[in-house]
Amino acid sequence: MVFKKITLIGTSPESFDKAVDDAVDRAENTLDNVYWVEVEEMGVEIAAAEDREYQAEVEVAFELAD
Amino acid sequence: MVFKKITLIGTSPESFDKAVDDAVDRAENTLDNVYWVEVEEMGVEIAAAEDREYQAEVEVAFELAD
Amino acid sequence: MVFKKITLIGTSPESFDKAVDDAVDRAENTLDNVYWVEVEEMGVEIAAAEDREYQAEVEVAFELAD
Amino acid sequence: MVFKKITLIGTSPESFDKAVDDAVDRAENTLDNVYWVEVEEMGVEIAAAEDREYQAEVEVAFELAD
Amino acid sequence: MVFKKITLIGTSPESFDKAVDDAVDRAENTLDNVYWVEVEEMGVEIAAAEDREYQAEVEVAFELAD
Amino acid sequence: MVFKKITLIGTSPESFDKAVDDAVDRAENTLDNVYWVEVEEMGVEIAAAEDREYQAEVEVAFELAD
Amino acid sequence: MVFKKITLIGTSPESFDKAVDDAVDRAENTLDNVYWVEVEEMGVEIAAAEDREYQAEVEVAFELAD
Amino acid sequence: MVFKKITLIGTSPESFDKAVDDAVDRAENTLDNVYWVEVEEMGVEIAAAEDREYQAEVEVAFELAD
Amino acid sequence: MVFKKITLIGTSPESFDKAVDDAVDRAENTLDNVYWVEVEEMGVEIAAAEDREYQAEVEVAFELAD
Amino acid sequence: MVFKKITLIGTSPESFDKAVDDAVDRAENTLDNVYWVEVEEMGVEIAAAEDREYQAEVEVAFELAD
Amino acid sequence: MVFKKITLIGTSPESFDKAVDDAVDRAENTLDNVYWVEVEEMGVEIAAAEDREYQAEVEVAFELAD
Amino acid sequence: MVFKKITLIGTSPESFDKAVDDAVDRAENTLDNVYWVEVEEMGVEIAAAEDREYQAEVEVAFELAD
Repeated sequence: MVFKKITLIGTSPESFDKAVDDAVDRAENTLDNVYWVEVEEMGVEIAAAEDREYQAEVEVAFELAD
Repeated sequence: MVFKKITLIGTSPESFDKAVDDAVDRAENTLDNVYWVEVEEMGVEIAAAEDREYQAEVEVAFELAD
Repeated sequence: MVFKKITLIGTSPESFDKAVDDAVDRAENTLDNVYWVEVEEMGVEIAAAEDREYQAEVEVAFELAD
Repeated sequence: MVFKKITLIGTSPESFDKAVDDAVDRAENTLDNVYWVEVEEMGVEIAAAEDREYQAEVEVAFELAD
Repeated sequence: MVFKKITLIGTSPESFDKAVDDAVDRAENTLDNVYWVEVEEMGVEIAAAEDREYQAEVEVAFELAD
Repeated sequence: MVFKKITLIGTSPESFDKAVDDAVDRAENTLDNVYWVEVEEMGVEIAAAEDREYQAEVEVAFELAD
Repeated sequence: MVFKKITLIGTSPESFDKAVDDAVDRAENTLDNVYWVEVEEMGVEIAAAEDREYQAEVEVAFELAD
Repeated sequence: MVFKKITLIGTSPESFDKAVDDAVDRAENTLDNVYWVEVEEMGVEIAAAEDREYQAEVEVAFELAD
Repeated sequence: MVFKKITLIGTSPESFDKAVDDAVDRAENTLDNVYWVEVEEMGVEIAAAEDREYQAEVEVAFELAD
Repeated sequence: MVFKKITLIGTSPESFDKAVDDAVDRAENTLDNVYWVEVEEMGVEIAAAEDREYQAEVEVAFELAD
Repeated sequence: MVFKKITLIGTSPESFDKAVDDAVDRAENTLDNVYWVEVEEMGVEIAAAEDREYQAEVEVAFELAD
Repeated sequence: MVFKKITLIGTSPESFDKAVDDAVDRAENTLDNVYWVEVEEMGVEIAAAEDREYQAEVEVAFELAD
């Protein structure tokens, strides 16, 4: 059994929880066998966003098919 | 005055705030004189949970009785 | 173009999201041209607070005027 | 010449050396021109394994074809 | 569900794998519901050992009973 | 032979050396077979102290009895 | 909006700036919507290079298409 | 003698050396007694720049007047 | 309630304790409502000092007035 | 009593344990009074090795003669 | 095969590239079999230099003769 | 101008200041042109010492002769 980890950054105009969920949703829609997620960084983009954009960088671990 | 720190991991099916509160609740129910808590890691368990389980690893500092 | 970063700690009796917003509000009220914010630390003050005080240490980046 | 790095987690019921080899085997079976591997983390999974499962998270560097 | 983490240092005159197992054995003999173990540091004690003593510092996570 | 490490924070109104000693004294009064201590953090509490309170967070390693 | 980050190592016989550009060129030739790049490590390969090969490990962030 | 450190981010369309110089120029124009500068982070902004904008985050140490 | 943190480096020809106190004295003379101080780095300047100059880099946290 | 630490990288075609031993052997053959060794990094060289070369970077601490 | 690593700080009045080269030149003039170099820190000395002195701290790895 | 850094661990039965001085004394007795010292780690040896042995690991930077 081998896992692979990729790094995604989810975004939300509302909260950090939703920014993490945004990244996890994306991972689960495109990858099978997602096992766990680790939060690496959190930030708020202001200059390039309409209001405040909450961002969460996460590492997503999933099992590779044989 | 001497403090001790222990490491707990709280969990919640809803949010990171509730995962932290879960750990703090546990600390306050079993320890006197809890002073502060530091968040060390946050993650989401997916494979072993029904849906998503938010997890927060925290260090809890409390004063030791003399 | 030169940016400067300062370190603020926002607080909230309710949640980490509101603690971050507290610091961002302060930054936007006193600084022009805030570009982004990075979350550095999160913690909960218990001994010196009425109930639980959520704290978020953030770095705020803003553009310096010429 | 440009290299890319990916993150894999190898597993073994026997030892950390075999967990690293598990990840390196996988990399060499699916990638050309693997150059080197860096060990990032080691751990033991107990609750979700029959006995003890040794795990090694590694970064694998390989040369990209032009 | 709340987990607690403690830090143990296992030792072995033979190998790092056995030093980790030494700490995991100890944890499993004295704690219920050990979930996983993370390797934090590895070293070799020479001056205070007969020959070479391999040491592995690990964090052990276990579920607290309600 | 298995060691355990715990985290203590010693305090002193006088100096960092005495804050470390405060934590080591506590460890030696309540634990057998203390082997070594590592200093992790140093700080000064001002708002909640009469004058300045020097604080030293240390990890204390001691041998577990069989 | 979700971003993904990948890790590339650019190389140049001339300078670190060109090693970073080498990695950014590669990213822009093969990925749409590259947003920013973070420099993680810099080094010089000597034994396996004709002269000196400057290397720059970078993380490249790009927006994922919906 | 007391020093203060502030964090600036210099930018340049040409190179990292010039991005560092941009921040040092700014510091020397507005502060007396700049002693030294430490490079903390380097990156390249692409999405919000015309071409590539090299960025260098530095800490600037200067002596405070009595 | 919002705190700000600034970075100072205190110096002393005698000891690290006095180098920290030097920075704290400065902070308390120029800032209201200093809450706590964290020691970040310690070093000794030799080439540019008459004898040995002990240096302590600290972060000073103080409450911002509304 | 003053100790000095040096950094060695041992190698082995077989295992990480033997790579560490390779570095410790070298240290003990050329230095008196080796006290302890800390493992800093582990990796596998593939491109420049016949098969896989396990590498372990260690810090070796030894007592300096008066 | 055993490697040793030493730490050098190269300097240049012109650029970071030349500061790294300064350290690599020194290493190659006094050591056989230099394999690779890792950049650890970069800074600019201002107070003790005529103008700006770019500094690069590097670790140099070289093979030890048998 | 090229600097070299070496790592020493000074010891004292009395205090951390004296443990640092112990390492600096040693450096100044055996090396010309010591420029500065950085404190890396502090600890207390108990099991192998008569009473408490304060230890300070420092990096010593000195200028290499041409």
